Amino acid sequence: MVDNLNIPLPTWLTLFEKNYQACADIEAQMRFVIQAASKNIDMGTGGPFAAGVFQQDNHALVALGVNLVPSTGLSILHAEMLAISLAQQQLGTYDLRGHRLVCSAEPCSMCFGALPWSGISELVCAAADADVRAIGFDEGDKLPNWQQALEQRGIRVINAMQREAAVQVLKSYQQHGGEIYNSNAN
Amino acid sequence: MVDNLNIPLPTWLTLFEKNYQACADIEAQMRFVIQAASKNIDMGTGGPFAAGVFQQDNHALVALGVNLVPSTGLSILHAEMLAISLAQQQLGTYDLRGHRLVCSAEPCSMCFGALPWSGISELVCAAADADVRAIGFDEGDKLPNWQQALEQRGIRVINAMQREAAVQVLKSYQQHGGEIYNSNAN
Repeated sequence: MVDNLNIPLPTWLTLFEKNYQACADIEAQMRFVIQAASKNIDMGTGGPFAAGVFQQDNHALVALGVNLVPSTGLSILHAEMLAISLAQQQLGTYDLRGHRLVCSAEPCSMCFGALPWSGISELVCAAADADVRAIGFDEGDKLPNWQQALEQRGIRVINAMQREAAVQVLKSYQQHGGEIYNSNAN
Repeated sequence: MVDNLNIPLPTWLTLFEKNYQACADIEAQMRFVIQAASKNIDMGTGGPFAAGVFQQDNHALVALGVNLVPSTGLSILHAEMLAISLAQQQLGTYDLRGHRLVCSAEPCSMCFGALPWSGISELVCAAADADVRAIGFDEGDKLPNWQQALEQRGIRVINAMQREAAVQVLKSYQQHGGEIYNSNAN
């Protein structure tokens, strides 16, 4: 038995975060997030996914997450879940209203379910669900109208921003033989 | 910026785990889990929910989780997510095939989505989704056929085991004025 759950972050991630310069342009925030997904492949620390929590008003980066499933052995550590948790730890509250989650790909079924609990106000995605499935990842059993369900809860959703750039990162992961980890499919 | 995500567990939880004596009876495992949910209320460490990961073959308890959302400020820390993560940390792998997740309540939309990624083979629940909603918690936007979706992935689902006992714990939380935390509803 253990008395804590401790998730060390890759050293590069903490350094990489410092490269972000607050910018009102959401496109710039997305470029930064997609670069983090690419770096996660290069560093061998996880799947080709990244997500950042940004303040909506001053555009500050609160936390950056990448997929750490294969390197930590924790299946919940999708980029979105890590970014949300790090932001909440940083702010000392589970309430992320007034924040935007910028993701290199649309959420899987787990991350979709996690969004309302985080209080996040806005979701911006690059690659589509279909793009992620195209390289072999399972996105889970999602509501067909998942975007509408989020919007009904007051979460603004923007899709397909810089989709092609994010797809290139997914393809690069596949071409380099990146692990398509999936306990359930085996 | 932080260089790790560290989630200290309540001291009582680590001690409480030691009370479990391996038993082939799933009903006994459920009683133990419901007791943990009740204890979580008494100790003021979170919502009225608990979950345990048990080995299917020898019935050993691998990890016990309780809801720690209000005490940690992390919205992903539902009992199921913590139990799964602690079990994976303990076993050094994200693959929990051959394990059973015993929960004091049916999974919310996030935990539903997390189950296939964990590889868990079996899910046993006590309180129903409707029981959880009845005391004011939001269960999220779930597929109407969520149980069937899990079974199609090879995850066996057993519902409503000791449902009344679990409902009593939920009602006790409500009667004691337990916090119905929900960033999104505010």
